[in-house]
Amino acid sequence: MPEYKAPLRDMHFVMDEVFNFAAGYEAYGLTDASPDLVSAVLEEASKFAGNVLAPLNRTGDEEGCHIENGEVTTPAGFKGAYQQYVDNGWSSMTGPTEYGGQGLPASLGLVVNEMVASANYSFSMYPGLSHGCAAAIRAHGTQEQKDLYLAKLTPGYWTGTMCLTEPHCGTDLGLIKTRALPQEDGSYKITGTKIFISCGEHDLAENIVHLVLAKLPDAPAGTKSISLFIVPKFLPDASGEKGERNSLVCGSLEHKMGIKASATCVMNFDDATGFLIGEVNKGLNCMFTMMNHARLGTGMQGLCHGEASYQSAVAYAKDRLQMRALSGPAFPDKPADPIIVHPDVRRMLLTMKSFNEGNRALAYYTSQLLDKAHYSKDAEERADAEDQLAFLTPICKAFMTETGLEVTILGQQVFGGHGYIREWGQEQQVRDCRIAGIYEGTNGIQALDLLGRKVLMSQGKLLRAFTKQVHKFCQANEGHETLGEYANKLSQLNAQWGEQVQKIAMRSMQNREEVGAASMDFLMYSGYVTLAFFWLKMAVGAQEKLSAGTSEEDFYKAKLATQEFYFKRLLPRAQAHLAALEAGADTLMQMTAEQF
Amino acid sequence: MPEYKAPLRDMHFVMDEVFNFAAGYEAYGLTDASPDLVSAVLEEASKFAGNVLAPLNRTGDEEGCHIENGEVTTPAGFKGAYQQYVDNGWSSMTGPTEYGGQGLPASLGLVVNEMVASANYSFSMYPGLSHGCAAAIRAHGTQEQKDLYLAKLTPGYWTGTMCLTEPHCGTDLGLIKTRALPQEDGSYKITGTKIFISCGEHDLAENIVHLVLAKLPDAPAGTKSISLFIVPKFLPDASGEKGERNSLVCGSLEHKMGIKASATCVMNFDDATGFLIGEVNKGLNCMFTMMNHARLGTGMQGLCHGEASYQSAVAYAKDRLQMRALSGPAFPDKPADPIIVHPDVRRMLLTMKSFNEGNRALAYYTSQLLDKAHYSKDAEERADAEDQLAFLTPICKAFMTETGLEVTILGQQVFGGHGYIREWGQEQQVRDCRIAGIYEGTNGIQALDLLGRKVLMSQGKLLRAFTKQVHKFCQANEGHETLGEYANKLSQLNAQWGEQVQKIAMRSMQNREEVGAASMDFLMYSGYVTLAFFWLKMAVGAQEKLSAGTSEEDFYKAKLATQEFYFKRLLPRAQAHLAALEAGADTLMQMTAEQF
Repeated sequence: MPEYKAPLRDMHFVMDEVFNFAAGYEAYGLTDASPDLVSAVLEEASKFAGNVLAPLNRTGDEEGCHIENGEVTTPAGFKGAYQQYVDNGWSSMTGPTEYGGQGLPASLGLVVNEMVASANYSFSMYPGLSHGCAAAIRAHGTQEQKDLYLAKLTPGYWTGTMCLTEPHCGTDLGLIKTRALPQEDGSYKITGTKIFISCGEHDLAENIVHLVLAKLPDAPAGTKSISLFIVPKFLPDASGEKGERNSLVCGSLEHKMGIKASATCVMNFDDATGFLIGEVNKGLNCMFTMMNHARLGTGMQGLCHGEASYQSAVAYAKDRLQMRALSGPAFPDKPADPIIVHPDVRRMLLTMKSFNEGNRALAYYTSQLLDKAHYSKDAEERADAEDQLAFLTPICKAFMTETGLEVTILGQQVFGGHGYIREWGQEQQVRDCRIAGIYEGTNGIQALDLLGRKVLMSQGKLLRAFTKQVHKFCQANEGHETLGEYANKLSQLNAQWGEQVQKIAMRSMQNREEVGAASMDFLMYSGYVTLAFFWLKMAVGAQEKLSAGTSEEDFYKAKLATQEFYFKRLLPRAQAHLAALEAGADTLMQMTAEQF
Repeated sequence: MPEYKAPLRDMHFVMDEVFNFAAGYEAYGLTDASPDLVSAVLEEASKFAGNVLAPLNRTGDEEGCHIENGEVTTPAGFKGAYQQYVDNGWSSMTGPTEYGGQGLPASLGLVVNEMVASANYSFSMYPGLSHGCAAAIRAHGTQEQKDLYLAKLTPGYWTGTMCLTEPHCGTDLGLIKTRALPQEDGSYKITGTKIFISCGEHDLAENIVHLVLAKLPDAPAGTKSISLFIVPKFLPDASGEKGERNSLVCGSLEHKMGIKASATCVMNFDDATGFLIGEVNKGLNCMFTMMNHARLGTGMQGLCHGEASYQSAVAYAKDRLQMRALSGPAFPDKPADPIIVHPDVRRMLLTMKSFNEGNRALAYYTSQLLDKAHYSKDAEERADAEDQLAFLTPICKAFMTETGLEVTILGQQVFGGHGYIREWGQEQQVRDCRIAGIYEGTNGIQALDLLGRKVLMSQGKLLRAFTKQVHKFCQANEGHETLGEYANKLSQLNAQWGEQVQKIAMRSMQNREEVGAASMDFLMYSGYVTLAFFWLKMAVGAQEKLSAGTSEEDFYKAKLATQEFYFKRLLPRAQAHLAALEAGADTLMQMTAEQF
């Protein structure tokens, strides 16, 4: 029943009109990414997503993955779709040219991935994990390791995983028990059990490259003793092809609430051969290369499910006839009016629309920072991009997934009772989306990362890297004829943001718990203000087009209406988060554990 | 893995110390409900819920219901549990004594039902629907109908359903197509398809009594032409026992997100024999008798899943070791601290606790109004109770289920990755809870009912019936030594509540859409203020005990801490809802349907 159509017009609006991706590509010498090529890539990706992947989304959920004797089978159609994904070059798009990649910018990869993942999130995880694995090998591997593995991972012949979590530890990786015994030939024997391993075993590719966190026998306690190992399912032979089977096996598949077509594996390593990547005891640093990549991707999950849910909800709201408009029949010739006439249905749709499009702007802006940090010729610009990336990544991960979940829940609500029935697809969006707030570091961990590690540890520097953009923009628009009032509102919030950080910093000098007590509400406050900035940016752009005259009046007027809705109906939540965090740590800490 | 223990201490606190149920029972002549009997009933119900029903909750979800040739089988163990439910007299508890009921008060029935439904919500639906069916027959049936059906429904030998929804209409029942042809013997032939029929077919009881909405051939259009019919699966024979099979059949079971052990049926009526109940064309009025009953019960669903989720989350948070407290190791001898030391985990647990216990107070208060409306000897008191019931019912249904869903999502979050895995039980609570915001009138419909039908159509009378309670309470406590500041805060919100209604009423005179545009945020605002009232009531009671000296210091201190948390960290959300509704209808209505 549900159908996904890539919102190309919206995507182009953000890429071309709001952030001018093309100018960046030119400035950074990414001349392959010409406007024509970008358009063609988007067009092709939208076809692949809509025609090949979307039809497998619900069947994949129904069927799930199967395991027999340690071999995992993905749902019908997934293998063929993955083959097309590889054959059509989607895997290699942003990979390094020396390993068969096309060297296209990360920002374009993110846009393509939005389509793939909106159409079928479970499918998107297989290549998604591979990209993270390849990124870690590229950043930390030896030349030999890069030559060996990137040649296979880049085109997608092999896939990759991250093996971090164990039954007794997820967030607290210092507690891991997996052991790595050094061998005389320089390799290691890896023994231990890893759980929640996405795409740990499957039938899509001929080999799987596991990146495994383990400890050496003499390693000190805690996180500073973790090393990272490449542990392939099949050891590469002398020619770099799939060779001998390694002694690791998928013990079982997890039974999950959603993303059922993605194989979530318990992986047992039993004296498996592994190869150290990066330095001994520095494994966590290497893993962070993957995790930062994965966190923006996980944030996108909120947008992807939200967008798919919105498309279905709007179609349903225009089609479903139920009751009359309060102000009188809108379609007197029909037995009832379509429910899109009802203000409360519109409240739900507009909430969905404003989070989705705001989140898209946030994510695309962040992806542009990835380009800038990587390719800019100006060292200061690169450093500034890194600062903003560090600041925005936890916001992307947590705010986009919190709001994405709200969006999918509303999208289900629009359908009434049908929203609860599998055949209509909306409940799957909720179930699939739910994991995004949990994995890749729970949203609570993202909030601590944002407030503790990023904002406070940098003494506000990383916050200012972003708020100065906001400040400049507000100054430039405070006299705007129609949008000036919003620029002033945003300006106040922007100032309040910095002041709050000062206050939290003061309180946390007395009591370290204040940071954890403020973190989640601070993250949500930050997200609401960040989206306000991007919404106003979009509105200013839309107003320019309208003032200049355009054949797309509906499109731009909808942007203005959605921006107004966001400022007036959603942004007030920022103050509720502020009030909550100002309540301080005592409201959380005064109860003893027994009193719960 | 998950285990449900009825929170008897909390229940007694609300029943005995906050609302003094016993005094009401005495005043209303409900002398059977003596304190000793009440305690014994609660004790027995808690055993039945914990020992018999809770163990079937996850297996019921895994197995679901099965259909073969129109016969539905419930999951293993359900039939035996239902037999115990009937044998032990739980079905007949609040039923009329003349039909084998025990005539115990509705408020006590609600408390018992909380335990049954927290342990296994799907199970609770079978008797739950029956009670609604019996209530409608009791209110609108002829003496003969009452004698025939209540004798079977009251003890639970037969169960009942409500058959309202059809594929093309749920909210808008005026559109139903099911037809009732009058027969010469005074009966009717019913033909049509009903969907989403909870417990429409199953193997728990020997007969099922369907209450079916249908239209007579000459009925005018719209809702004023709907009649209600009793359509039993087996027609009663001359002795009132199960007789001839009626021509209705379950066509299929719906595939749902949750409550999988509750059979949700497509019911096909094909010239089935039915009997008019109530007057011709007045069927909707009869149905509302059932629906009001069901709406409070559905509100309870938010509390029930929330309570079950909280119990598991607290146990996990005390057990799971992960990271150290920010202020330094709490348990240096363990490899890490239990996660309950972390402020953000406490934020989640306290949010859960304050919604659950606040919702429990709201529901119990409402159930006390049911007693009062039914049994009070004072006509004025009865009328006041009816007014408050009318006002609070949509708040119970919608606010308790919105916040209940938030609670279960947080309870899943506390578990990290394990929260997403079926075996841990937390994801089932989310899936099961999700339906509560949708059925029995979506929460959007409840919001329209509250603001439009209840508050504005009564010109504020129904609102004042409740706010005057709040006002009196605030006046009495504004000088409270420790809680006076909160009484003043509540007093402001209470006044603001009435002022907002004035403003909305003014705006809606210009534009009818203003009511729908404000409704959901008004309902949520109302819910937050209502819970603030009940929390403060509980805190005043707890403070009295502490001041007087008690052996249960932990219990009462936890109440005070949770009340403080609620006021400082959750209540600020009321203002965000207020700001949103003050934005008015234009923010929702200015976009054309095409612009979505």
